[in-house]
Amino acid sequence: MKKYCFGIDVGGTSIKCGLFCVDGTLEEKWEIPTNTENQGAAILPDIAASIQAKMREKGIAKENVAGVGIGVPGPVNKDGEIPRAVNLNWGYKHISKEMEALTGLVAKAGNDANVAALGEAWKGGAAGASQVILATLGTGVGGGIIIDGKIVSGAHGAGGEIGHANMEPEEPESCNCGNHGCLEQMASATGIVRLARQALKESGQDSLLRKGEVSAKAVFDAYKEGDALADRVVERFAAYLGRALAIFACVVDPEVILLGGGVSRAGEPLVQAVQREYKKAAFSPCKDTPIKLAALGNDAGIYGAAKLVC
Amino acid sequence: MKKYCFGIDVGGTSIKCGLFCVDGTLEEKWEIPTNTENQGAAILPDIAASIQAKMREKGIAKENVAGVGIGVPGPVNKDGEIPRAVNLNWGYKHISKEMEALTGLVAKAGNDANVAALGEAWKGGAAGASQVILATLGTGVGGGIIIDGKIVSGAHGAGGEIGHANMEPEEPESCNCGNHGCLEQMASATGIVRLARQALKESGQDSLLRKGEVSAKAVFDAYKEGDALADRVVERFAAYLGRALAIFACVVDPEVILLGGGVSRAGEPLVQAVQREYKKAAFSPCKDTPIKLAALGNDAGIYGAAKLVC
Repeated sequence: MKKYCFGIDVGGTSIKCGLFCVDGTLEEKWEIPTNTENQGAAILPDIAASIQAKMREKGIAKENVAGVGIGVPGPVNKDGEIPRAVNLNWGYKHISKEMEALTGLVAKAGNDANVAALGEAWKGGAAGASQVILATLGTGVGGGIIIDGKIVSGAHGAGGEIGHANMEPEEPESCNCGNHGCLEQMASATGIVRLARQALKESGQDSLLRKGEVSAKAVFDAYKEGDALADRVVERFAAYLGRALAIFACVVDPEVILLGGGVSRAGEPLVQAVQREYKKAAFSPCKDTPIKLAALGNDAGIYGAAKLVC
Repeated sequence: MKKYCFGIDVGGTSIKCGLFCVDGTLEEKWEIPTNTENQGAAILPDIAASIQAKMREKGIAKENVAGVGIGVPGPVNKDGEIPRAVNLNWGYKHISKEMEALTGLVAKAGNDANVAALGEAWKGGAAGASQVILATLGTGVGGGIIIDGKIVSGAHGAGGEIGHANMEPEEPESCNCGNHGCLEQMASATGIVRLARQALKESGQDSLLRKGEVSAKAVFDAYKEGDALADRVVERFAAYLGRALAIFACVVDPEVILLGGGVSRAGEPLVQAVQREYKKAAFSPCKDTPIKLAALGNDAGIYGAAKLVC
């Protein structure tokens, strides 16, 4: 059996790289800048050069490398092709094929949010589970679905795009995607700020949230302090997210549901609020499905990318 | 390669049996009664005897049979075990193991709605697709999810239990499952009747639906006649179902969505109403996902059961 593999997580400003043993031990991680000039033409060659330099440095022979996995911000299909990746200035690219040509190693590619879910299912908050839903609560809401230990990428690369689940058809404001009432409008960092601003406007009630900048962190900090207005905001956020997760559980019935992304740094009080609302809405066989925090943070992407090839 | 396989669909009153070629050609089908006495102890032996009689009749040697697939009304796990099946009076049963012992053939088992989805993905309305959502609109709403050509049975056998997706948390009436606002309460035959009765009560408007028994069929018949009240009922049904399907598509992004079950006999007008509402709520990459009628009717179960073993 080959001993090593590489996991690469390509972002718009930097590329995270990991050298792993195939058992999932992270040997070393480093970053290189993302060069998005010339339609991002240098991105894959830069990654290949960095991998080859690391192999020379460590004296690792090609024969001892299982492959290179790559997570990319965009809709990668299961053959490793992408129609475009806006943040990288890429048009169509056959990522895995190009990387194989550049390195002579087996290469596979996936969407970054999906790959992060795979990483969490391998070595993170859902380690050992083969059926997982990850909801990534950041600026937007992303996610990944793992079934039988594999990413569900979907017919149009939209598998796990749970941020655009339509939870509130009567919502007057529109989502970035053009629809109205997407989960992302309620459960992302910006969505929580939006709910908080609405609550502040609708009520004259005193609140810690009137005393500084309104952010998702400020909302959860105030919630932990027992602030009544923040409590209503968190309840509303949790009702949308908990019910959405309950609906998703009727579809794929996962072993574990994970919450990741910046918003999830609010920790256990957030998990408990979501779990309470999830339980109300979930179908009986799924009511006790555990909801947990993702555990790998910014490393989930390199772990999941490595798992693509081992 | 072995030439034949059997597909068995166990219902509460009768058991449908099919002899198939492994390429999916149905050679012969027949039914036997379901004997639910003595905790349904005779059900699997009766099936085994019927299979063995058919093999003798046709001169089919055991060596030429790929196996027996069985669909059962209840939560079958991926090892072929079931904790109970109320309609069959079964307690815990290791279906596949018992059937293997009875017949000496390879046996696999699955939930009947999931197995029907597999049949439709193999030889029915979604023939050739490997990512499918089937919504079965009958007395209740069931379903099945196919990913990479395989059933998603889920951690608690609740994969594809889309009838219990919580679409309307404010719904005052309760679903059979105990929750409030399940899709089944709006999109099953009984759900449509419920919506129609509400509409008849709330409005004094004249309607064809005031002239006979209110059934799902009567609602769609009146809708096709241009009846304004039936139109509102169908729009409401379609808004719930279309939005639910759009949410499910954010999770697994299927190639095709199928509508089956008795309600789907309303045909193309139903499909068009659902497609219209689906499109409003769907995430952009999934807006053009085709919604089609299931094609195998009551035979979907035997086809899918056969596919379990070939």
